[in-house]
Amino acid sequence: MSDISNMAIAAKKASIDMAVLDSDVKNNALAAVCEALLANEDAIIEANKKDLVNAEAEDLAVPLLKRLKYDSHKLNDSVTGIRSLIGLEDPVGKVNLHTTLDDGLELYRITCPIGVIGVIFESRPDALVQIASLCLKSGNAVFLKGGSEAANTNRILADVISTAGISAGLPEGWLNLLESREDVNGMLSLDKYIDLIIPRGSNQFVQYIMKNTQIPVMGHADGVCHTFIDRDCNPDLALKVVLDAKTQYVSVCNATETILVDEPLKDTLLPKLLDMLKDNGVEFFGDDYVSSTYGCEAVSDWHHEYLDMKVSVKIVDGVLEACDHINEYGSGHTDAIITANEASAEIFMGRVDSGSVLVNCSTRFADGFRYGFGAEVGISTSKLHARGPVGLEGLVSYKYKLIGSGNIVGDYASGNKTFKHLRHDI
Amino acid sequence: MSDISNMAIAAKKASIDMAVLDSDVKNNALAAVCEALLANEDAIIEANKKDLVNAEAEDLAVPLLKRLKYDSHKLNDSVTGIRSLIGLEDPVGKVNLHTTLDDGLELYRITCPIGVIGVIFESRPDALVQIASLCLKSGNAVFLKGGSEAANTNRILADVISTAGISAGLPEGWLNLLESREDVNGMLSLDKYIDLIIPRGSNQFVQYIMKNTQIPVMGHADGVCHTFIDRDCNPDLALKVVLDAKTQYVSVCNATETILVDEPLKDTLLPKLLDMLKDNGVEFFGDDYVSSTYGCEAVSDWHHEYLDMKVSVKIVDGVLEACDHINEYGSGHTDAIITANEASAEIFMGRVDSGSVLVNCSTRFADGFRYGFGAEVGISTSKLHARGPVGLEGLVSYKYKLIGSGNIVGDYASGNKTFKHLRHDI
Repeated sequence: MSDISNMAIAAKKASIDMAVLDSDVKNNALAAVCEALLANEDAIIEANKKDLVNAEAEDLAVPLLKRLKYDSHKLNDSVTGIRSLIGLEDPVGKVNLHTTLDDGLELYRITCPIGVIGVIFESRPDALVQIASLCLKSGNAVFLKGGSEAANTNRILADVISTAGISAGLPEGWLNLLESREDVNGMLSLDKYIDLIIPRGSNQFVQYIMKNTQIPVMGHADGVCHTFIDRDCNPDLALKVVLDAKTQYVSVCNATETILVDEPLKDTLLPKLLDMLKDNGVEFFGDDYVSSTYGCEAVSDWHHEYLDMKVSVKIVDGVLEACDHINEYGSGHTDAIITANEASAEIFMGRVDSGSVLVNCSTRFADGFRYGFGAEVGISTSKLHARGPVGLEGLVSYKYKLIGSGNIVGDYASGNKTFKHLRHDI
Repeated sequence: MSDISNMAIAAKKASIDMAVLDSDVKNNALAAVCEALLANEDAIIEANKKDLVNAEAEDLAVPLLKRLKYDSHKLNDSVTGIRSLIGLEDPVGKVNLHTTLDDGLELYRITCPIGVIGVIFESRPDALVQIASLCLKSGNAVFLKGGSEAANTNRILADVISTAGISAGLPEGWLNLLESREDVNGMLSLDKYIDLIIPRGSNQFVQYIMKNTQIPVMGHADGVCHTFIDRDCNPDLALKVVLDAKTQYVSVCNATETILVDEPLKDTLLPKLLDMLKDNGVEFFGDDYVSSTYGCEAVSDWHHEYLDMKVSVKIVDGVLEACDHINEYGSGHTDAIITANEASAEIFMGRVDSGSVLVNCSTRFADGFRYGFGAEVGISTSKLHARGPVGLEGLVSYKYKLIGSGNIVGDYASGNKTFKHLRHDI
């Protein structure tokens, strides 16, 4: 059997032990991880310097170098993040349904960890720390595969975190680092042992994962986010929000990629919008009207994620047409309406079929930290299980516990007994 | 484009209209369905008689004929079921999280329908009525494919229910009947329009569906359910419960397929258990000890679902070994422990990684009706989204609604503003 299979069998075993840990043990383990990170600060930063030297030699772009860097400041941010996680309620063991089926037959629905989770993430060492601690708090065993540029940093971080956890009472095999593409491919076939894959990365990469595994996948392939400017809007507010939604950070999934402008604003707000985009270095592409009137290039694909200082602009006739366009060409990630009309806002939020629907604010807000979840493992565009930014709550499942006193179904089938189905308030 | 693609596009469109329907409209539509079923009783029973005649001509087994039969009594049961559904709370539109991110920036998490659901079910016409009404109540558009033996009955039921719903305000295309295997295969490729597939049927069939679609699948391939008899048990209670778990209805997924007997009971309870099984016409297969001592056949595969008057019997040494066996060979469906020892019960419920874990009662209880959900669309062995018996709550997703007043992320990135993250009690 391959190494990765053996690791997966051990992780599955560990996940059963993790599922029954007391909250105290998990919180103590998180505290031990904090101490170990601080105690190993020099060695971690040294390892990160090796990665940075390699990356510079390979001419990695400056923004990527910035994300790869893991210095004293970022390490302390990681520790602060873990400490805030310790303070959060344990997501495991919460009773969310209790029904007395009959005398001496009590049904409970109780949250429990998912089991073994595989996370594949970009070259940010702080992501490794965040994901590992979210999985620990939620009682899941985890496979981690980070970007190869961060190989040295990831190796020492995984080692420090795994060891600290085990010394504080976590089972061997609770955290596993994968280092190659082959390991990732190996993981994809282990649906007997791995319960969930969370891939973060390019559209192409996420699609590849989704198509090559029987394991459930949580995440998003792309973020074609829209901002619709309704006829009844405050124009200054609209321009301010759209500028932030497009330009505050262009290379992320919640940046706006298409601006929809309501038809009555064609001669008023539209020219101001286009001027503002131009003044701020944003190249725009248009529908027939916009491209012929303003001499820009026409949009060839309305389902296009620029991740750049570029944006598509389209005229639509009212909020219903905006909803239709978004449901047809969006990716179910995050879409916003700018309006002073409550009825339009309600229609938009009801009909746009996306994880986050926003009114009068920037699409850039759709993120686990900003939503107050402490941290996120990713953003899901699936409609099953967790949707939108996924924090601790998305990392648990539940099981039914039915506690009887010798009850048999025959008694109910024969009519000797009948169910009471008394549902208790939680 | 194929017919099925066009149906799916229309169903997706209908699902957006369904998502914003008032509870009253949905409940009125359910009432209209009841009236229409009663008004068309003669024609429905007539259609069912055709199916019964065809099935008899094809020598369908008696239990299958009984399930296929849809008479006045079953129709009235269907109507009673729908009326109880009308009385249940709308699962859509429930706020389950509310956080003030900052002044004038309110985050809500609100339940919403999943969208378009495809359900493939066995030859029970009452299943069609139940699934259609669960989908209606939860605001989902639905594709239905029933067993071909029930073709005439399904056709008239789908027509009556669809028409009654539309006349009461549901959108065209909310309910669609598929009639062939080719239609089902067509549906599996329409992941752009269909959000969830729920297959009910044989292990082989469910596996086929799971392997041939990118659409999320909810359900279970098999039910290898266990009952473990702990050393600290009341022997009479153990025998009574095991007999019910094995024999009350053998052809269903929650019947016990393997009995695990704790080692200290080898010379006391085990011989009584085997006598009882024999007396009740249950053939048993054993591990080395059981087969050599009692001269029965040895079990060749511990992951085997008999769906028959047959059972596997194995000696295990204590509750931990029982949990390990179940996690290795079970299907994560339903498993029970018979014990008078609370610590053993806790260990079992904590470590057995199944949708339902039971103490001192029959595995046959694991079912949506018995759990008090009114009805179920199926039982899920997945750990994502809904697990165990799935009722209305498993047919909804949620979306985040963020309502602002011109807020931009730049203000928080620059430090001009900080988040308040004030979480409100719900």
